[in-house]
Amino acid sequence: MSDYLVHIDVSGIYALPEPERHELVARERAAGRKLIDAGTLVKLWSVPGKKGNFGIWSADTPDELHEALQSLPIYPYATFEVHPLATHPLFA
Amino acid sequence: MSDYLVHIDVSGIYALPEPERHELVARERAAGRKLIDAGTLVKLWSVPGKKGNFGIWSADTPDELHEALQSLPIYPYATFEVHPLATHPLFA
Amino acid sequence: MSDYLVHIDVSGIYALPEPERHELVARERAAGRKLIDAGTLVKLWSVPGKKGNFGIWSADTPDELHEALQSLPIYPYATFEVHPLATHPLFA
Amino acid sequence: MSDYLVHIDVSGIYALPEPERHELVARERAAGRKLIDAGTLVKLWSVPGKKGNFGIWSADTPDELHEALQSLPIYPYATFEVHPLATHPLFA
Amino acid sequence: MSDYLVHIDVSGIYALPEPERHELVARERAAGRKLIDAGTLVKLWSVPGKKGNFGIWSADTPDELHEALQSLPIYPYATFEVHPLATHPLFA
Amino acid sequence: MSDYLVHIDVSGIYALPEPERHELVARERAAGRKLIDAGTLVKLWSVPGKKGNFGIWSADTPDELHEALQSLPIYPYATFEVHPLATHPLFA
Amino acid sequence: MSDYLVHIDVSGIYALPEPERHELVARERAAGRKLIDAGTLVKLWSVPGKKGNFGIWSADTPDELHEALQSLPIYPYATFEVHPLATHPLFA
Amino acid sequence: MSDYLVHIDVSGIYALPEPERHELVARERAAGRKLIDAGTLVKLWSVPGKKGNFGIWSADTPDELHEALQSLPIYPYATFEVHPLATHPLFA
Amino acid sequence: MSDYLVHIDVSGIYALPEPERHELVARERAAGRKLIDAGTLVKLWSVPGKKGNFGIWSADTPDELHEALQSLPIYPYATFEVHPLATHPLFA
Amino acid sequence: MSDYLVHIDVSGIYALPEPERHELVARERAAGRKLIDAGTLVKLWSVPGKKGNFGIWSADTPDELHEALQSLPIYPYATFEVHPLATHPLFA
Repeated sequence: MSDYLVHIDVSGIYALPEPERHELVARERAAGRKLIDAGTLVKLWSVPGKKGNFGIWSADTPDELHEALQSLPIYPYATFEVHPLATHPLFA
Repeated sequence: MSDYLVHIDVSGIYALPEPERHELVARERAAGRKLIDAGTLVKLWSVPGKKGNFGIWSADTPDELHEALQSLPIYPYATFEVHPLATHPLFA
Repeated sequence: MSDYLVHIDVSGIYALPEPERHELVARERAAGRKLIDAGTLVKLWSVPGKKGNFGIWSADTPDELHEALQSLPIYPYATFEVHPLATHPLFA
Repeated sequence: MSDYLVHIDVSGIYALPEPERHELVARERAAGRKLIDAGTLVKLWSVPGKKGNFGIWSADTPDELHEALQSLPIYPYATFEVHPLATHPLFA
Repeated sequence: MSDYLVHIDVSGIYALPEPERHELVARERAAGRKLIDAGTLVKLWSVPGKKGNFGIWSADTPDELHEALQSLPIYPYATFEVHPLATHPLFA
Repeated sequence: MSDYLVHIDVSGIYALPEPERHELVARERAAGRKLIDAGTLVKLWSVPGKKGNFGIWSADTPDELHEALQSLPIYPYATFEVHPLATHPLFA
Repeated sequence: MSDYLVHIDVSGIYALPEPERHELVARERAAGRKLIDAGTLVKLWSVPGKKGNFGIWSADTPDELHEALQSLPIYPYATFEVHPLATHPLFA
Repeated sequence: MSDYLVHIDVSGIYALPEPERHELVARERAAGRKLIDAGTLVKLWSVPGKKGNFGIWSADTPDELHEALQSLPIYPYATFEVHPLATHPLFA
Repeated sequence: MSDYLVHIDVSGIYALPEPERHELVARERAAGRKLIDAGTLVKLWSVPGKKGNFGIWSADTPDELHEALQSLPIYPYATFEVHPLATHPLFA
Repeated sequence: MSDYLVHIDVSGIYALPEPERHELVARERAAGRKLIDAGTLVKLWSVPGKKGNFGIWSADTPDELHEALQSLPIYPYATFEVHPLATHPLFA
């Protein structure tokens, strides 16, 4: 498994009417929990003032990561920055 | 408590019809006064020609700051740049 | 008097040999104290990880501000971003 | 009085229906003449191919400049870049 | 304690002669181990092809983080991007 | 004659030893006065905190402007941003 | 006459319904032919994959160029980058 | 034949209602297969988290490439970055 | 094995004296051939006018890719942009 | 033959001692004349205030263009932006 740093900008969902947005966020949280249980989503942080998050994701291949990100309910409304990560000698 | 420099771009509110915009700004001012009274919003400046502001905010943790910013009525329409600040030797 | 937000990047001083750099920083601190006493430098913060600072400066005119910044010992090695600030209704 | 270089991008007005746009531009020209008479708007140039202008504005304080810019009929549709200017030795 | 995402670009050390660079990297690793033991440096990754790293750092205040980063032997040669992080509801 | 807004960044001259820099600036001022007398350099401003200037230049053709800028003693050390300007209806 | 390199981004017209877009492009081509006959539009190229073009335009003054660009039917939907050009010694 | 690296951002299609988007993607895939059979589209990759792709395209001339890209059903909704490629000595 | 698009900017080697540069390029070519034989370097193109290349690299993990790139003789002088690639449906 | 718009930034040559720079420019002009005679360099313009030029180049393939640009004496000191151009319907 390899780690990836993923920044997700979800500001696009604020173009939705509020009820629809809340419903989407609820579905997104449920999907997130499944990905956490599967070990794909390792850690997620909010960012002060930002409509988005930084996360550490883990996948065997870029294909697997792409599939997981595309499966997110917010995928059509969000933009993703994906940084592949390599093992640092201090944490080898 | 730590200081944060926060730039808020509120140009998004100009997509609203004028009456709605004025009502939102009034709610925003009221929320601002509460944050000032709470010591969270230390100082705020407008910027010549800009639909936004620079402010010095104070919070114990990034979580607390994120909560304060998310509580602002303009949050859905605005974008935020947050710079954490550290004590300078000249003001230690 | 008008307020200005000034970001100073001092990374240029790290091209100097260490002894020279420390001597320059000492002269810079002394000059800073004078500007604080004169009310020109209102507040200064360091920025975590950065070789620079954010500050609130106060001057009657842009000429006066330019003179104060040019008087800084680090001026030849530093770059400055100056944002003029206007009074915000919440702090009028 | 201090000088400011102000770049105004008015491309936002092209989202308006043409009649509304022409009416807004007429009101804008009238407001511009008043600012010229008041000495606030010193000089204005169009920019080949651009939906905007460069101008030299003059004001006692950033507050005064902000007020003048906010008074423009196009203010809600435009974006402004404000550069404070200082006296150059060759024109002292 | 709050988390921070820190990107460190160490390409500046490649201006040093190779022996000096290796000695600096050795000192840097030793300093890194101490920060890991202290709980300040939580996790560090290399980035494929890059002369730098992404890391999760933990500190009580921005002052504490700034002190830790300034203590790094590579500090004079490196540039740092610091992102404050807030708790995400999925990991509250 | 057409007007041009020219921004000149002279920070490159700070790589010169101080005596050489002062001598170059003196030659530059003399050349500037000649250009003012010739009507080529209409107005020049310093910019608070910046090692550069904004100026209004006037020339019959881009060739003439290029020649005037290349004739400046600081030309080898400086970078130039040239904006052609057109007559605005308010100043026709 | 002076030459100008002009880049025109016409992606804005793709927001129009297709029939309207084709009609606008037809009017644009007709206007283009007139400008070619007048010697104002010297040469025009498409750019692989881009909704825009690079062109060499010729005009006595920036005013004349601005007028020609503003006369284009696509002007309200397009953005323009104008580079003034000077004679190169190899083509003097 | 020459190779080109083409990055296509298709995020624009997400503004369409979902059924329309799926129909467009189906037509796009069919067009893609034809271009592959013709040798014009040599290889295509998705990019983890991105609504777009990187591809190696092959054409005799820029005109031919432009025609192929303009023929894509997604052309009106997409943006293209085209990098011309030259033979590397290691693959001559 | 996963594919990666890697852009390498080698302009840094032009700071070396010419003989040293040619010797380094020769070692780089030899290293490149080995990586091609190992299947790690799949394809490489030069870019007209650029001191760099685009390449398709293949590795099991980001760690493996990082190791291969760090092994290049030009590594200390070059900068790398790494894009992870995923299988596109048209080439599944 | 296909056309390419090429922007060449030659500011790098100003790091050379003046005599060396003038000798290099003389060799560059001679090489330029040969490329003009060969039909590879179609047209070249200087840019007011800039240490560089815009040119229209013509080549059968990107390989041929790359070879011509690499043959320029200034190649090691310059940076190149290459835009492939396609025939515009108005000039077909």
